[in-house]
Amino acid sequence: MQNSKHSTDGETYRVRKLEITDKNKGFMELLQQLTVCDPVTDDEFQNRFKELESYGDDHMICVIEDATSSKLIATGSVFIEKKFIRGCGKVGHIEDIVVDSSARGLQLGKKVVNFLADHARSTGCYKVILDCSADNKAFYEKCGFKEKEIQMVKYFV
Amino acid sequence: MQNSKHSTDGETYRVRKLEITDKNKGFMELLQQLTVCDPVTDDEFQNRFKELESYGDDHMICVIEDATSSKLIATGSVFIEKKFIRGCGKVGHIEDIVVDSSARGLQLGKKVVNFLADHARSTGCYKVILDCSADNKAFYEKCGFKEKEIQMVKYFV
Repeated sequence: MQNSKHSTDGETYRVRKLEITDKNKGFMELLQQLTVCDPVTDDEFQNRFKELESYGDDHMICVIEDATSSKLIATGSVFIEKKFIRGCGKVGHIEDIVVDSSARGLQLGKKVVNFLADHARSTGCYKVILDCSADNKAFYEKCGFKEKEIQMVKYFV
Repeated sequence: MQNSKHSTDGETYRVRKLEITDKNKGFMELLQQLTVCDPVTDDEFQNRFKELESYGDDHMICVIEDATSSKLIATGSVFIEKKFIRGCGKVGHIEDIVVDSSARGLQLGKKVVNFLADHARSTGCYKVILDCSADNKAFYEKCGFKEKEIQMVKYFV
């Protein structure tokens, strides 16, 4: 996401919402480049898609499709957490950002992150947060983020 | 949360779910000890409560009430994020942990965190995560968490 290739124009690499037919465009294979991502059946995919869709604007997954190959080459998600603090404020949580290994350097990651942050802002969030490795800190700084806290985890499996 | 007072038994300080009447028991005043927490009207509180309640088990706020004063002295929340990775896995996000300044050292913070983590596990999450300051890292390690990534933030207001 940080090499020297030039950015492309918005028309060629448009960000759009995930659609229920996107499993056929390599959505799961794209996520496999991020982390452990076991295969899911069409039914499992559609059920999870519908569960997330029921949250309306409070959950959004976006993708970028390569117009030539019709394959998805970038994705990310954001969900909107509703709180009591900050006058019943809301916080956007960005998750699962990944750019296809063949499409690095086109600033697609930045495009996805900005799209998700804009969504959080438009739904009334006072901030948007994400967790990343130290290696990706510089990338998110270029997207306007600053380091704040530390992430702690407890695994069950 | 980490001083030398002894823990009390579970009956005296029972963890329970937030109830819609808990605004009268000092819920907002408790949150004010955590961060910026502007006053909200009864209507605003009830509306936000109902929004969160509509998520069912996917969002839970718990509290501990002091049986003597009928005031809330600890709280925390967890929401369940549904993903496509990890075989359509789920992740619990713990937020807004606070213990009343008069009740530190009773291990109420640990009790709240364990309650929320148990909820995440029982709903099928493969992990539970949270963000904290470096000062609170040792406390969460005692709760079984390990440092993993860094949290980045972008403020809109």
